[in-house]
Amino acid sequence: MIYIHTPADGDVWLNRFRQALPGQDIAAFPQPVDDVAVTTLITWRPPEGLFARFANLAHVFALGAGIDRFLQRPDLPPHVQLYRLTDAGMAQQMIEYVLFGVLRFQRNMDGYLRQQRQALWQALPQRAASEVRISVLGMGELGTQVAQALVRLGYPVTGWSRTPKVIDGIPCVHGLAQLDDLLRETDVLVCLLPATPETRNLLDETRLTQLPAGAAIINAGRGELIDLDAMLALLDNGHLQGAQLDVFPQEPLPASHRIWQHPAVFVTPHVAANTLVDPSVAQIAARIKALQRGEDVAGRVDRQRAY
Amino acid sequence: MIYIHTPADGDVWLNRFRQALPGQDIAAFPQPVDDVAVTTLITWRPPEGLFARFANLAHVFALGAGIDRFLQRPDLPPHVQLYRLTDAGMAQQMIEYVLFGVLRFQRNMDGYLRQQRQALWQALPQRAASEVRISVLGMGELGTQVAQALVRLGYPVTGWSRTPKVIDGIPCVHGLAQLDDLLRETDVLVCLLPATPETRNLLDETRLTQLPAGAAIINAGRGELIDLDAMLALLDNGHLQGAQLDVFPQEPLPASHRIWQHPAVFVTPHVAANTLVDPSVAQIAARIKALQRGEDVAGRVDRQRAY
Repeated sequence: MIYIHTPADGDVWLNRFRQALPGQDIAAFPQPVDDVAVTTLITWRPPEGLFARFANLAHVFALGAGIDRFLQRPDLPPHVQLYRLTDAGMAQQMIEYVLFGVLRFQRNMDGYLRQQRQALWQALPQRAASEVRISVLGMGELGTQVAQALVRLGYPVTGWSRTPKVIDGIPCVHGLAQLDDLLRETDVLVCLLPATPETRNLLDETRLTQLPAGAAIINAGRGELIDLDAMLALLDNGHLQGAQLDVFPQEPLPASHRIWQHPAVFVTPHVAANTLVDPSVAQIAARIKALQRGEDVAGRVDRQRAY
Repeated sequence: MIYIHTPADGDVWLNRFRQALPGQDIAAFPQPVDDVAVTTLITWRPPEGLFARFANLAHVFALGAGIDRFLQRPDLPPHVQLYRLTDAGMAQQMIEYVLFGVLRFQRNMDGYLRQQRQALWQALPQRAASEVRISVLGMGELGTQVAQALVRLGYPVTGWSRTPKVIDGIPCVHGLAQLDDLLRETDVLVCLLPATPETRNLLDETRLTQLPAGAAIINAGRGELIDLDAMLALLDNGHLQGAQLDVFPQEPLPASHRIWQHPAVFVTPHVAANTLVDPSVAQIAARIKALQRGEDVAGRVDRQRAY
């Protein structure tokens, strides 16, 4: 049977999945369930020990795209297949979030906001979209759609990923060897990478220093990607124009962290791309049906590469 | 001969126009010029009495899209043909400016900025692009391109104009009779109208009150379109979510105006779409050549309709 375990709205998810998978046996926390009968788990923020309860667990569907916290779990046995959401309405939200940040940096909206406080009417230097070189780190489903939306609006965009990619309309480079060269020609750095052993602290002091003067950073991937202290030092000394950050090494970001009050940083509380009920239910239900027919499905997590 | 009169950068414009119109007689302020020889004037912010100097003036090219201040000039004789820029690189900038405002309202970025000051990590309610009904008032070259860009990003957009328009992919309504109905179904109102006798104070208290609770306003047309006091009252009582204003009845906006310090208003100093040298020179030079061949050109201002 299928068991749904979420921090909230269990009945909402249950009703939607029952509609999408008629005739199937589905229950949701906090309803009691026959643990031994559970073969498929749909979950977000699973409490410690949850996976160990189900002796016959075969499939775990995460209600999100980033599954690094699932991979750190000792109670998730290696033979259990993990799946993550791919797009499911998140790409549109991510496009909006990144685009807001790009426009804010390009058009110096922060500078106008500061001038407004002083009642100062003064045009600021401004760049054309064609002059703002954007690099998207992480060219999965979300990164690709973000890059394509930016290109449609006139920005020159380059994609970067771990392995080679060929994507219509987006020049792509790959591997650590090409990252430094890319950073040196990046005006807005968009981070959409997953947290894996290879990406942790990828943007350390040495790499961040490669960014040209006046560059800006948007991170909507994972907080672990960036050395925050190194980034703050480059913001403090004026080398970087600003940062828009949705993810942090520790979430919620502690109220005492100095980044909250940094004038060049815009902090959002991990809301760039929320899980949406309708498209998520549709995607997971379709995958459950395909698996039951013996077919392969998208979104299977490779635990070795960690995404 | 052709005379260029701008508040600044006369030599920049002169060099570009000489390159674009080789063999033609061109001079630029503050160079002296034989007034009686001037038949074509290219100008922005022309000083009082400028037009009256040139007895044989036939064509005036404004270095902007909004020419309401030219039409108020008693020294511009009725037989002189006035032309305004159409697009010339402004549409792309206008798309960016409007899109920034739409995203800011849709994604409640202002709310997150306020929360940041309190170090508050909390998701706010959020609407999908498909739920944000945008109305664009003014469906000329800029309005049409703005509307189409918004549609490509997933927003439902309706265009409104004085006269009927048929525009690919954008439902359009027209005339005062349909404006109130449209306002009642508008979440973000984008004003890109010119200032004419018909549009002055178009958005008065009665019409602004038609907007649903939580609606927002972006004005990048002309300050004369909106009754600022009525708008501020609706912002003060919380009926409207916010406003992003680039144009004002008096510019520069006086430092003493209370709108500068209004927490729900973002003020920018008439920078939404700046005149760009290269595309403006290319457009005007092509029009001058076409006129010399006896052809008709776009951008001719109809003084009766005032745009």
